[in-house]
Amino acid sequence: MKDFFYPETVAVVGVSSSPTNLARAIVYHLIEFRYTGKIYLVGPKGGSFMDHPIYPTISHISDQIDLAAILTPASTLPEIMEMCGQKDIKRVVIESAGFSELGDDKKGLEQQLVTIAGKYGIRFIGPNCIGVINKENGLATPFMPFRNTFDLGPLSIISQSGGVGGALLNELANENLGFNKFASIGNKLDTDENDLLEFLLNDRGTETVFLYLEGIADGRRLMETAFRSSKPILAHKSNTSEASTRIARSHTGSLSASEEVVNAAFRQCSIHRVTDMNSTLTAIKAHALPPMRGNRLAVISRSGGHAVVAADAAAKYGFVLQPFPGDFLKMVESRLRAGVIRLGNPMDLGDLFDFDLFHEIVSNTLARDDIDGMLVVLNYNGIFFEEDSRSLVGKIKEVCLQGKKPVALCVVTTGEEWRLNRCNHPNFPMFTEPEEAAYALSISRDYCQRIVSSFKEAETFVVDKKQPLAILAEAGSRQAQQLTTAKSFEILETYSVPLAPWGQARNSEEAVKRAAAFGLPVAMKVMGEEFIHKSDVGGVLLNLSNEDEVKAGYHRLAAIIQTTASRPKEEAILVQKMVTEGYEVFVGAKQDPVFGPVILTGLGGVYVEIFGDVARRVAPVSAEEAGRMFGEIRGSQLLKGVRGQPPGDLEALVHIVQRVSQLACDLPQIQELDLNPIMVLPKGRGCLVVDCRMVIS
Amino acid sequence: MKDFFYPETVAVVGVSSSPTNLARAIVYHLIEFRYTGKIYLVGPKGGSFMDHPIYPTISHISDQIDLAAILTPASTLPEIMEMCGQKDIKRVVIESAGFSELGDDKKGLEQQLVTIAGKYGIRFIGPNCIGVINKENGLATPFMPFRNTFDLGPLSIISQSGGVGGALLNELANENLGFNKFASIGNKLDTDENDLLEFLLNDRGTETVFLYLEGIADGRRLMETAFRSSKPILAHKSNTSEASTRIARSHTGSLSASEEVVNAAFRQCSIHRVTDMNSTLTAIKAHALPPMRGNRLAVISRSGGHAVVAADAAAKYGFVLQPFPGDFLKMVESRLRAGVIRLGNPMDLGDLFDFDLFHEIVSNTLARDDIDGMLVVLNYNGIFFEEDSRSLVGKIKEVCLQGKKPVALCVVTTGEEWRLNRCNHPNFPMFTEPEEAAYALSISRDYCQRIVSSFKEAETFVVDKKQPLAILAEAGSRQAQQLTTAKSFEILETYSVPLAPWGQARNSEEAVKRAAAFGLPVAMKVMGEEFIHKSDVGGVLLNLSNEDEVKAGYHRLAAIIQTTASRPKEEAILVQKMVTEGYEVFVGAKQDPVFGPVILTGLGGVYVEIFGDVARRVAPVSAEEAGRMFGEIRGSQLLKGVRGQPPGDLEALVHIVQRVSQLACDLPQIQELDLNPIMVLPKGRGCLVVDCRMVIS
Repeated sequence: MKDFFYPETVAVVGVSSSPTNLARAIVYHLIEFRYTGKIYLVGPKGGSFMDHPIYPTISHISDQIDLAAILTPASTLPEIMEMCGQKDIKRVVIESAGFSELGDDKKGLEQQLVTIAGKYGIRFIGPNCIGVINKENGLATPFMPFRNTFDLGPLSIISQSGGVGGALLNELANENLGFNKFASIGNKLDTDENDLLEFLLNDRGTETVFLYLEGIADGRRLMETAFRSSKPILAHKSNTSEASTRIARSHTGSLSASEEVVNAAFRQCSIHRVTDMNSTLTAIKAHALPPMRGNRLAVISRSGGHAVVAADAAAKYGFVLQPFPGDFLKMVESRLRAGVIRLGNPMDLGDLFDFDLFHEIVSNTLARDDIDGMLVVLNYNGIFFEEDSRSLVGKIKEVCLQGKKPVALCVVTTGEEWRLNRCNHPNFPMFTEPEEAAYALSISRDYCQRIVSSFKEAETFVVDKKQPLAILAEAGSRQAQQLTTAKSFEILETYSVPLAPWGQARNSEEAVKRAAAFGLPVAMKVMGEEFIHKSDVGGVLLNLSNEDEVKAGYHRLAAIIQTTASRPKEEAILVQKMVTEGYEVFVGAKQDPVFGPVILTGLGGVYVEIFGDVARRVAPVSAEEAGRMFGEIRGSQLLKGVRGQPPGDLEALVHIVQRVSQLACDLPQIQELDLNPIMVLPKGRGCLVVDCRMVIS
Repeated sequence: MKDFFYPETVAVVGVSSSPTNLARAIVYHLIEFRYTGKIYLVGPKGGSFMDHPIYPTISHISDQIDLAAILTPASTLPEIMEMCGQKDIKRVVIESAGFSELGDDKKGLEQQLVTIAGKYGIRFIGPNCIGVINKENGLATPFMPFRNTFDLGPLSIISQSGGVGGALLNELANENLGFNKFASIGNKLDTDENDLLEFLLNDRGTETVFLYLEGIADGRRLMETAFRSSKPILAHKSNTSEASTRIARSHTGSLSASEEVVNAAFRQCSIHRVTDMNSTLTAIKAHALPPMRGNRLAVISRSGGHAVVAADAAAKYGFVLQPFPGDFLKMVESRLRAGVIRLGNPMDLGDLFDFDLFHEIVSNTLARDDIDGMLVVLNYNGIFFEEDSRSLVGKIKEVCLQGKKPVALCVVTTGEEWRLNRCNHPNFPMFTEPEEAAYALSISRDYCQRIVSSFKEAETFVVDKKQPLAILAEAGSRQAQQLTTAKSFEILETYSVPLAPWGQARNSEEAVKRAAAFGLPVAMKVMGEEFIHKSDVGGVLLNLSNEDEVKAGYHRLAAIIQTTASRPKEEAILVQKMVTEGYEVFVGAKQDPVFGPVILTGLGGVYVEIFGDVARRVAPVSAEEAGRMFGEIRGSQLLKGVRGQPPGDLEALVHIVQRVSQLACDLPQIQELDLNPIMVLPKGRGCLVVDCRMVIS
């Protein structure tokens, strides 16, 4: 990937002398951004632009070309790519649109490009993108117009949309926050976000990576990369609704993924998800400060109202406002002019016009061992004390950078003064209000306190997969939609998942015998592949408590089975010991098209249906991670035992989650699997799975 | 209140020739804002400032003074107020700090001011504020420095904090959104937000009111005022945490109110609550556009990525993206230059460089009957097509204003171009990103679709309060903490709240007789004032199903009662018919220090404890409003009957809420009241209150 950003020669293909020719903007940028390498222009009509001759084809250039940036009609791409290959160009940025984003009929054209690239060993970015920028060497290939008002900074950007990526660059310029590398990746036909992310995480100039994605190329690879990262990764994954998908598909050909799974996956591998430009900028600012390593915050404000608002925000984001030492407060008090304000944390210094003292207070406070970071509000209106205030901004920056702890500085002032301060201190983030500042500090704190449990940490159990694979192969060969309950149970048993004692009965005598063996009461259920919700057809009988009820139950269920047309018909009936105590929980799994096996758990019934109180993880999960899932479920407080009830056996439940996690990874043929209900018995007594459904297509 | 904003003469008190004298800023502002009246300066040292003589006292001025703005040490205020009174000045703005915000020992000083004001019929704003501004006549008394870069607009502002209010003015200036009137109210010793709000809602120049409040002076009056308002009211109620209260108290002497009650009250009377500067600005912009009267949105973007992001935002805020008519799409398609983009809603016009066509598309779309508003994203970077783009901004504004429907226009561009566009179109709001634009449109839509059910609409029932008042008076005379269950039940019966059949037993024979009369099984409970949670002491026995159990139960409870030291001791035991079916619900009420009687309801048990699934209203509520409470509770889906269960009698439950609502209003002596559980029987069969607790101090 490095070669995309550090070419020594660039050919811009598609340039003409027409004033509406877009490729000219690429040339303009290379010059505007002071590209340190050599530039060649290519266009069939020849001529020249900005003192550079336009070669009719790439082949006419005698120099070696490290990178070609192409903006010509889509249909011309195969021929141009061929020429690139023949000229031994190994990196190409295809900015042309008109590919699969228009519809599946363009897939053939895309396939042609992939084939040609493969033949010549070309790696390319695009099509349908605005190209790359490297602030280090001035490489800048967008056709979207930019002035080079950008600072060099530690942030690098991967954007599936040129428009959104470009808008971010403008916002960064407004904040005088710089960037290092930028890549717009469009249809991601060859190079995708994972390729670039891996590179950037090893790139010396990059300290934070931001991704704008409308689709995710390979969710598991993204997670694996993020697990290994020592740099913060921020991502705006858009395309979250049906209407979005319609337009995203026509824009970059991206399909939508399950929102809940994206959220779970990102949390799991510590990718911070942002949802719009505002939250993007705040997260970028968060990581532009030294890290917030703990939760203890000091708030100092030059306006009482902002001190109140800052305290609200500090509480909202869970910070602890440490008290100031008494002698320190006394010192400050003695130097205030009228003593009309009471001091504490937050500290309202509205009456303080001694800017050296303000500096001293900030500096002493940040140096304290019991303070992890500060939120400082500096109000001034640029008429009185404007020089003092501006200079204080610089001093606070120094305190922050030297102290290696964050000071989130809100400069509350006029637009003009704000821009002046921004300009004076590039790459030092400033905030406009306490809410944003506290949010940024919380992002940094949460990143510092992140717990990453990668797939590798998941324990694996020895399982003989022969029987499960045989069951699935047999059902698959018949295009069955789901497995019978008995087959599902057999697979679970292979994975050592504890089941409520069960057996099959093919006549009423056998049913009675089984029931007697388990001890009454029992439950009886139909088991066939055709029953999606057994209880909907009356196929579940509970609490059968004597021989007659069992017999009658058998006949009732047998009659139901007789009315179905399914082949092969499952004639046997499930007889199961009735589990009458414990908390009802479910554990499920499904195969996500983007992230692969995903595991879910929650309390059963209304908690899921009404409150959506479910925890999700991309599998496999470690025991520790499974335990954290229950920490996330609000209803799991019940499992700890409330109102005098005994606590449930959470350890056994975690064990089930781990087993199911491995099962979902081992057997992706199972599209969905739902263990529901699982009865969680009191601590030390385990859990019992009562019912299960496995969908295989 | 009008006289605060339209004085013909103003005296500024506290001016001196010292360069750090803050009152000089007031004089500066009156001149900077081109105040149309006459200005007089007062200060004991005399001299002059900005060509105005400084009079030693107010009495030295011969002209009549309509308004005095005072910024002198707190201790001087009583004397100055006396002089104001003697000079027949009826309106005073006290900007001095050093009053109750410093502590309760300053309450005396404040009381002095109130007394003097009362004596002379003076109304005053403050103390501890930055004064008032009226953009109409240039009245501007802040001591905080401002340049008059503000446009005249339809927004008026009431701010408890000068700093936060001032910051908002700066933000408005950055957005070229104007304001009409501004009042900073500080300690609200005389004039409070209600006085000013009532005035502004009748003020011709004001179309929207924003309030920043750290405390609420009189919650019910605020609500009554808001109920009557035909203008949108926005409020940032800060001071939401314990640390905030600490600083707010020392800043403006405000106490914190219950957050949930504030939220409920504001929703009830359609005050839109904002939480920070960002959401404040978005709400102000929302109401600066024509109203969004429905939910049907068209999205047009010049960047595909922003079209995706806009569709995400539209879905998030619940808008419907109407399809464009087919012939219209064909027309647009025929005029696009390369046809590389598919059209729909959102419409991606990234390839369109015909700005007249863009204008035509926006104009035709907004005119459609099936479109209630538009979200338009205009990307340009200020190098190519900058003139066309700037002119398009103006044209879209015209389309919006003439069409009387909102077009939320996102101008995605460089900071420089953004400021230029803002400057060209004062008072027309622009947005920086689709998220903000969609949020603003949703605020406008929600305001248009608001349902306001004022206190007056609550039905009142004829109740003879004699017995309840006697019960409360008797218990109050003994400083009892709560009522016995029997007394609580008697009060509920007076209010026609249906109870599970109950009676009292003073011996086991009586208990058996009662039980037989109700029919077994029964419940038995202790009833004394001393039992806070009866079941914690074993004072609740359920499901007693025969005579022996009832007898034994009586003796068990009687023994518990004997061990308590309470006087007077309630010896009688409650015998109650056991209600074994129905959904468990609770209805409660409490007296809020700011809003008075508040009513709460929710499903019992874990739904409240774990999910906080509770609906609240300030009482009294109408039947309709009570019905909406259940619409808000997520768990109330259960009441509608899920999984084959019968729906509950919601009508009867609403009836209980209404009765309790009236009870809470009639009997504020009852601090807290909790009907829990109420069993909601199947539809048509009513509800039965099973237990109740009334706390009276």
